[in-house]
Amino acid sequence: VADYQLYYWSGIPGRGEPIRLAFEEAGVAYDDVARGPEGNKVIARVLAGELGGLKPFAPPVLKHGDVVVSHVAAILQYIAPRIGMVPDGERERAAAHAIELTITDFWLEMHDVHHPIAMSLYYEDQKPESKRRAKHLIEERMPKYLGWFEQAISGDYVFGNTISYVDTSLFHTLAGVAFAFPRASARLAATIPKLHALHDRVAARPRIAAYLASPRRTPFNNHDVFRHYPELDD
Amino acid sequence: VADYQLYYWSGIPGRGEPIRLAFEEAGVAYDDVARGPEGNKVIARVLAGELGGLKPFAPPVLKHGDVVVSHVAAILQYIAPRIGMVPDGERERAAAHAIELTITDFWLEMHDVHHPIAMSLYYEDQKPESKRRAKHLIEERMPKYLGWFEQAISGDYVFGNTISYVDTSLFHTLAGVAFAFPRASARLAATIPKLHALHDRVAARPRIAAYLASPRRTPFNNHDVFRHYPELDD
Repeated sequence: VADYQLYYWSGIPGRGEPIRLAFEEAGVAYDDVARGPEGNKVIARVLAGELGGLKPFAPPVLKHGDVVVSHVAAILQYIAPRIGMVPDGERERAAAHAIELTITDFWLEMHDVHHPIAMSLYYEDQKPESKRRAKHLIEERMPKYLGWFEQAISGDYVFGNTISYVDTSLFHTLAGVAFAFPRASARLAATIPKLHALHDRVAARPRIAAYLASPRRTPFNNHDVFRHYPELDD
Repeated sequence: VADYQLYYWSGIPGRGEPIRLAFEEAGVAYDDVARGPEGNKVIARVLAGELGGLKPFAPPVLKHGDVVVSHVAAILQYIAPRIGMVPDGERERAAAHAIELTITDFWLEMHDVHHPIAMSLYYEDQKPESKRRAKHLIEERMPKYLGWFEQAISGDYVFGNTISYVDTSLFHTLAGVAFAFPRASARLAATIPKLHALHDRVAARPRIAAYLASPRRTPFNNHDVFRHYPELDD
């Protein structure tokens, strides 16, 4: 049993992936509990309050000793100083949290583009609305968010030459955008050169490269936040 | 000049209001800069990076000495220990942040119900989609979120008998829901008695009552997150 237990759906990278990537880059062990023998059943128990304290609203949930944290950005903010994935300064930590919360907002827009009416409906039941929303996402929101991430990069990484959880999260975000919207993504590439360089630099780091080549990395798929529906990519 | 400068659009309570309410309940002075002589022009300058450090993605932004923080939940997390609006324990603080981030998610759904296709379009340009989304919001999402807030209340307030920023935020959230969806809100009331009692308790606190009666409290209106379109409330 590792010091950290991550509870997140198996079968998708999803909102667990920024947390996995931070642990992987840090070389710190974690249990990805729902990938164990019990599978996703454990998530229902966690949402019912099995871990004690505040009942989580939704996964991911992280347990570390007595502390239970939920929400991606809050989990990363909690683990990062403990596993060496954020700079020391108060300014930098506030900036890292703000960037991760902005990534969270962007992911929700990347999700809602295929679910503009309701999460409880299938994509197939909200296709005309999705198509309408996708045009605005591609033309307005993607350039705005990705351009903002671009200007936040101060060196090889967001914080100069020191890698942090924000970089591993941006790596996965850019990969997700390219999976979901390959054509729009290709058109935007020239406007975000630093973000692309950061993506490639993160992918080439030895621990990340080993992780990406391992069975622990689940490929993107259409049950996830980032989904590829070719008809939306235009 | 107060120790804390809040930068948020004037004219709406908006996402600045949970921050104002925390300061008001604490009795701590803050400058609501865009309500000064310069008005909202100052926001454009802040978004362009005038405060230094990370350029904020969107208001609200808080400046405290050298530290600049953006995102509602991050600002509350930063100020609360300094102004006495959160309990001391690590578990409680993690829980407070998780609840505030869940409030943030709920507010986005309360916003997107009148903007399901694009923020850049008027409500009038996305009315059929709004009506379709509103049905799911009212039947599925409002009960889910409000029910989850209800079960998080452990005493008079979320954390027993100690008021925190989570309570002032929940007060405003419930008020916003009642403004936007008076009929759906009335139907749900019986299922969330603790939340309603908390709302009334917060409203009756001397500093909050004085604030609500002052010109500093901007009424809800249809330029805000919470909007009242009667046709969506059914």
